[in-house]
Amino acid sequence: MSAGLEPPAVIEADGPSSGLLPRSRRGVQPDGGARKLRVGIIGATGYVGSELIRLLSRHPNVDIVGLAGRDRHDDPIGGFHPHLASTGMTVGTELPDDIDAAFLALPHGAAAALVPEMAARGVAIIDLGPDFRLRDAADYPRWYGFQHPHPELLDIAVYGLPELHRDELRALIDAPVAIVGSPGCYPTATLLALAPLARAGLIGDLVVDAKSGVSGAGRDAKPEMHFGEVDESVRAYGIGGHRHVAEIEQELAVTASSVGLDPGANPGAIGVDFVPHLMPMVRGILSTNHVRPTRPISADELAALYHEAYDDEPFVHVVASAPATKHTTGSNHVLVFPYLDERTGRILVIGAEDNLVKGAAGQAIQAFNIVHGLPETAGLQQLPLAP
Amino acid sequence: MSAGLEPPAVIEADGPSSGLLPRSRRGVQPDGGARKLRVGIIGATGYVGSELIRLLSRHPNVDIVGLAGRDRHDDPIGGFHPHLASTGMTVGTELPDDIDAAFLALPHGAAAALVPEMAARGVAIIDLGPDFRLRDAADYPRWYGFQHPHPELLDIAVYGLPELHRDELRALIDAPVAIVGSPGCYPTATLLALAPLARAGLIGDLVVDAKSGVSGAGRDAKPEMHFGEVDESVRAYGIGGHRHVAEIEQELAVTASSVGLDPGANPGAIGVDFVPHLMPMVRGILSTNHVRPTRPISADELAALYHEAYDDEPFVHVVASAPATKHTTGSNHVLVFPYLDERTGRILVIGAEDNLVKGAAGQAIQAFNIVHGLPETAGLQQLPLAP
Amino acid sequence: MSAGLEPPAVIEADGPSSGLLPRSRRGVQPDGGARKLRVGIIGATGYVGSELIRLLSRHPNVDIVGLAGRDRHDDPIGGFHPHLASTGMTVGTELPDDIDAAFLALPHGAAAALVPEMAARGVAIIDLGPDFRLRDAADYPRWYGFQHPHPELLDIAVYGLPELHRDELRALIDAPVAIVGSPGCYPTATLLALAPLARAGLIGDLVVDAKSGVSGAGRDAKPEMHFGEVDESVRAYGIGGHRHVAEIEQELAVTASSVGLDPGANPGAIGVDFVPHLMPMVRGILSTNHVRPTRPISADELAALYHEAYDDEPFVHVVASAPATKHTTGSNHVLVFPYLDERTGRILVIGAEDNLVKGAAGQAIQAFNIVHGLPETAGLQQLPLAP
Amino acid sequence: MSAGLEPPAVIEADGPSSGLLPRSRRGVQPDGGARKLRVGIIGATGYVGSELIRLLSRHPNVDIVGLAGRDRHDDPIGGFHPHLASTGMTVGTELPDDIDAAFLALPHGAAAALVPEMAARGVAIIDLGPDFRLRDAADYPRWYGFQHPHPELLDIAVYGLPELHRDELRALIDAPVAIVGSPGCYPTATLLALAPLARAGLIGDLVVDAKSGVSGAGRDAKPEMHFGEVDESVRAYGIGGHRHVAEIEQELAVTASSVGLDPGANPGAIGVDFVPHLMPMVRGILSTNHVRPTRPISADELAALYHEAYDDEPFVHVVASAPATKHTTGSNHVLVFPYLDERTGRILVIGAEDNLVKGAAGQAIQAFNIVHGLPETAGLQQLPLAP
Repeated sequence: MSAGLEPPAVIEADGPSSGLLPRSRRGVQPDGGARKLRVGIIGATGYVGSELIRLLSRHPNVDIVGLAGRDRHDDPIGGFHPHLASTGMTVGTELPDDIDAAFLALPHGAAAALVPEMAARGVAIIDLGPDFRLRDAADYPRWYGFQHPHPELLDIAVYGLPELHRDELRALIDAPVAIVGSPGCYPTATLLALAPLARAGLIGDLVVDAKSGVSGAGRDAKPEMHFGEVDESVRAYGIGGHRHVAEIEQELAVTASSVGLDPGANPGAIGVDFVPHLMPMVRGILSTNHVRPTRPISADELAALYHEAYDDEPFVHVVASAPATKHTTGSNHVLVFPYLDERTGRILVIGAEDNLVKGAAGQAIQAFNIVHGLPETAGLQQLPLAP
Repeated sequence: MSAGLEPPAVIEADGPSSGLLPRSRRGVQPDGGARKLRVGIIGATGYVGSELIRLLSRHPNVDIVGLAGRDRHDDPIGGFHPHLASTGMTVGTELPDDIDAAFLALPHGAAAALVPEMAARGVAIIDLGPDFRLRDAADYPRWYGFQHPHPELLDIAVYGLPELHRDELRALIDAPVAIVGSPGCYPTATLLALAPLARAGLIGDLVVDAKSGVSGAGRDAKPEMHFGEVDESVRAYGIGGHRHVAEIEQELAVTASSVGLDPGANPGAIGVDFVPHLMPMVRGILSTNHVRPTRPISADELAALYHEAYDDEPFVHVVASAPATKHTTGSNHVLVFPYLDERTGRILVIGAEDNLVKGAAGQAIQAFNIVHGLPETAGLQQLPLAP
Repeated sequence: MSAGLEPPAVIEADGPSSGLLPRSRRGVQPDGGARKLRVGIIGATGYVGSELIRLLSRHPNVDIVGLAGRDRHDDPIGGFHPHLASTGMTVGTELPDDIDAAFLALPHGAAAALVPEMAARGVAIIDLGPDFRLRDAADYPRWYGFQHPHPELLDIAVYGLPELHRDELRALIDAPVAIVGSPGCYPTATLLALAPLARAGLIGDLVVDAKSGVSGAGRDAKPEMHFGEVDESVRAYGIGGHRHVAEIEQELAVTASSVGLDPGANPGAIGVDFVPHLMPMVRGILSTNHVRPTRPISADELAALYHEAYDDEPFVHVVASAPATKHTTGSNHVLVFPYLDERTGRILVIGAEDNLVKGAAGQAIQAFNIVHGLPETAGLQQLPLAP
Repeated sequence: MSAGLEPPAVIEADGPSSGLLPRSRRGVQPDGGARKLRVGIIGATGYVGSELIRLLSRHPNVDIVGLAGRDRHDDPIGGFHPHLASTGMTVGTELPDDIDAAFLALPHGAAAALVPEMAARGVAIIDLGPDFRLRDAADYPRWYGFQHPHPELLDIAVYGLPELHRDELRALIDAPVAIVGSPGCYPTATLLALAPLARAGLIGDLVVDAKSGVSGAGRDAKPEMHFGEVDESVRAYGIGGHRHVAEIEQELAVTASSVGLDPGANPGAIGVDFVPHLMPMVRGILSTNHVRPTRPISADELAALYHEAYDDEPFVHVVASAPATKHTTGSNHVLVFPYLDERTGRILVIGAEDNLVKGAAGQAIQAFNIVHGLPETAGLQQLPLAP
């Protein structure tokens, strides 16, 4: 463990006196649960930040005690997010020290620099950027163009997709350092669509053709995000290797190996053909996964794989017809539709989600809940908003 | 009172044995509040119905015990509203008898036939159609083309805009019969924008130019609601007298008289020029009110009128710049922007809301809360969903 | 040839006396070209019909002499298509007899019944439905659910994709009977994207993931086309075998065999995995073709294949970055983007078009031009409308 | 006349030797009309610029000989406007000298500096910005915040709304200096809606509530034009005095005085209450004009006023029901709907147009045609694109 990360000492100094949770037991609240967890959000002025505020403001076990954004000095939140003006919150430059957890919604590379100090103080880190998603430090220069400054943390960080890593997230309750690398929006919909096939060694060949609303690209006023360019149009982008490929390939392999399969069991999970498309809509991701299976499979067997995987999951719903992204808007739901095409012999699996909720803020809160021993659905029970 | 409406007898017969609330005291729950109110929704398959389900499902004091739709026989709700499939609810033909309250989202004329029997049994009625909004029975043939079958109920019914009729709604807690005519979507935004001026006798001349998303027109598959016709286009409709004019004129007069003004005090509130427009969007109403005041007024005086009227209201927010409908989506908020145009001498007041929430389902729940002595914001505290 | 189709006799009787073109030489106008061709449109009240009117109204060599729709009696066109009201046209039940060509935009099965008599009279038929697209009569019951009443015409009809069948279309200039089965919207974008690979025997495995605006589904007021359902959402449909698969597979095979390849040369062109998606937009098709090649190919070789195929085509543009559908709106352009993904070894080819122009009305006019010996671009030279 | 504007001398030097039109007779082409007019566009990279290129490329009497944009060096047009890539044009820093006419699409203040030299050389100027729209130089600091550097040109410039200033535009055929200030998008729809009332002295009180697609605000990547902010939302802007008020008031006065009325005849035309709104769409303006007439008027009289004004106009269509902006898209049409509301006694007049065509590029070409003695509809005959 690096010099910058010696949590036990830090915890001794800071934990007891601050009235915060004893760091070695995040999940047990000494006062019987009455105290709310104190959380902060860094990167509060973007779309993911606003969604974290929207959801955490209504979380029964949370107090938002700080919002931070670059060069902000107690600026009213309404100046960035008019729909949140009624919260009366402000955005400053830094978070208070005495917080239980921090959510980070920052450009790649920024969190890697901030996290070690905070994590060492025992603050649970839920990072919504890519800095703690990849296990192999070599993937950072390859996919993101920067050397990871703290590769030792990549071994500790947990990939925050609860449906695939719930036990590891739970283990953070007792860990002195808790770092969650919350998944990207595309990987969430794609991995949940594919995980049952990966575990069964069924992915012979794979094409992931994905569609996203513009909020996935953030809030920056880029010319290509101008309404005049986006509306009434679709186009592919990220041709030749969108960064989310790295997560998708990593986690398909992890998922297969978690049930004892070797990498060759899912040949289609290597060198994934992933092509994202920009949709003329604000929210929503649809991941259309075209799979040529490694062996023949019946429709019943396919359905059984998915129901077994997801029937006990609170947020993943296996549906019987092709889902629309609209039916997830504002909620933490993922709709998964597996289909065996008898004519072509292929398996089609479609995943639909709200990229800002299950694809970002909601998922992060779901992991946060697990890391703190809270009910996994706390603060995430609102239904989708449609039409 | 009509033969069909003799509540005391009904209450004696039905109240005690059913375990429901004593009808003469809706606001006090005998068991100290632990019991949830049993509610049903008639007209559950439309857009307003789905929004009632979405909100009431998360209301802490409510159990939805029945959904009704025409010719439905325990049909899964997901067949009508895929986003609500996870609730596991079904839609039948009728509601159970032992309910505390019924929400009705029906075409005009339909509720007027159903309500007397239900109301007489002590069921609190929250009608989201027009059948109990107008006080003068003659307005029904004029504006809606039907003779109201129970004009005597129009004297009892309360116009369910809490910001204007809170005391009357509260009085229903103890009333044997409780009927709320929940306001239309356009009148809500318009009346909240104009009420402070009406009370001050300032409306000299009035033009209401309103804009609505398509969900305000319901879910029927009409040719003019086809995506190909609506998208990338705006147009006016309802030229020459949209039905909501009746409510707007009635309530502007009521509001003025409630503070002792006579009808001539607001000459612009008579023969209101109201022109609605269809927007290429799903939700949202913007009501742009152009007022020529009866006397000169300063910007400070104008602001004071609005802050005095609304600063204590939980859902009405006076804002300092022109609001976007998007900043209310999914919430019960109304944003009101008053502005004195020094150049023209006019007052501009803009109201923005989500037509399905504060303009329909949310407002109905707000009134329901008052009628049952619940906190007015119960079940309505979610923040807007943006972007 | 069926009894209903004896063109020579008809032509003798009808041709000379009518002042129409001598049927055996559509391409030569006896008066030196001054006379405009007389055309009619059957199915004028739908979206394809309106687009035919828009384009043919401005075609320098055409007079629209008749518009027909079911149960129409000289109804002003503005009642169906307000944007065309200024043309002053009307829609009746039938076309005049003395026309040179008829465009048919009808539901499947309808044209097959009408065409034989008209074609026998020498009227050039440009059918925009599926009734004359497929060569194998057995495909009609399989894909469209009806027995083709005139299978003998399938041998005569020409698949109206000029870039693949220009010579056969030209041959109709001198043919007594001219029937063009104008391609479907999806097949046009897909086949133009894939034809160069098919000719090179490069299609080893194929996934076609396509996206369309709603106008491709016609104008009927179906619930799923309501603005409230379509806007802010994407979803797949036609899962398990959209009808356009039949055309795509047929023409990939035809294209390969046209250069002497046998069916096994493009194994991916058999049992094509085609999944269409509905976009929240009115016009535009994007066909994303994921190809695993039969052999390694360099990026230069790939580019050369496409430039060779299309550099002389007036409407197909090979582009260097992923195209947006918006950049074809209102024009007859198809943008084709071939890309070799070195990482995955796959070829990605994206085709973009306006489904109502190159995917329907424009393409039909292009074929009509060829069949009549007119410049192929006549009436089709307008540039796309953006933004 | 300023020193910078001595056209006769310039014309002597430049006209004959250049092969350009004799400046004193723009309308007569020495070679009998075979020569096309040479035009350039300054500000070619914005939305108005692209629309000028789209339309002028297909104009039968025009050759586009130069496109200019700031700091451009023969950059391919496709880099700015991918839909125009097939034209093969490039954008440079300057236009060639030997042009007949220049279209300028520039921010306010920029054209005023460029025009004098060009105009003095005899180049016909069609300025699409505000620099030559206002007659009173004092209006520039008031509404646009800059001192007009050449107020003397404001007397010469013609406001390029052909329906109101056709004779003055025609007079430019023989004028040594021709400067057209092409109207703004809102004023076009508004003035055409109101002109018949202004001429009749009927505008007693006026509220203009206008709605525009985002392309009216240009192409700059401003945060408020991000798709995430615009989609699914409407809002007012320019509260308290949008710059287009200046044009509207000026031209209503001019129109009234052109038939001998004095300013008091239309009291509502002074201090106009104009409130624009941003729509979630790309193109289209709807101007909803609420007029309280100075005297009672019958519906027949109202209709007669409009038909008399516009039945001979090629681009203005008086329609019988409320128009949708969509029915003008891509065309130079304006739809005008006058309506007498018997209930309120008001007149409602709605104008609909495509802001980039009749509201900008198309109107500019219409004026250009008149100034050069061409048929007024040349290059502008395409029909609207719908759906």
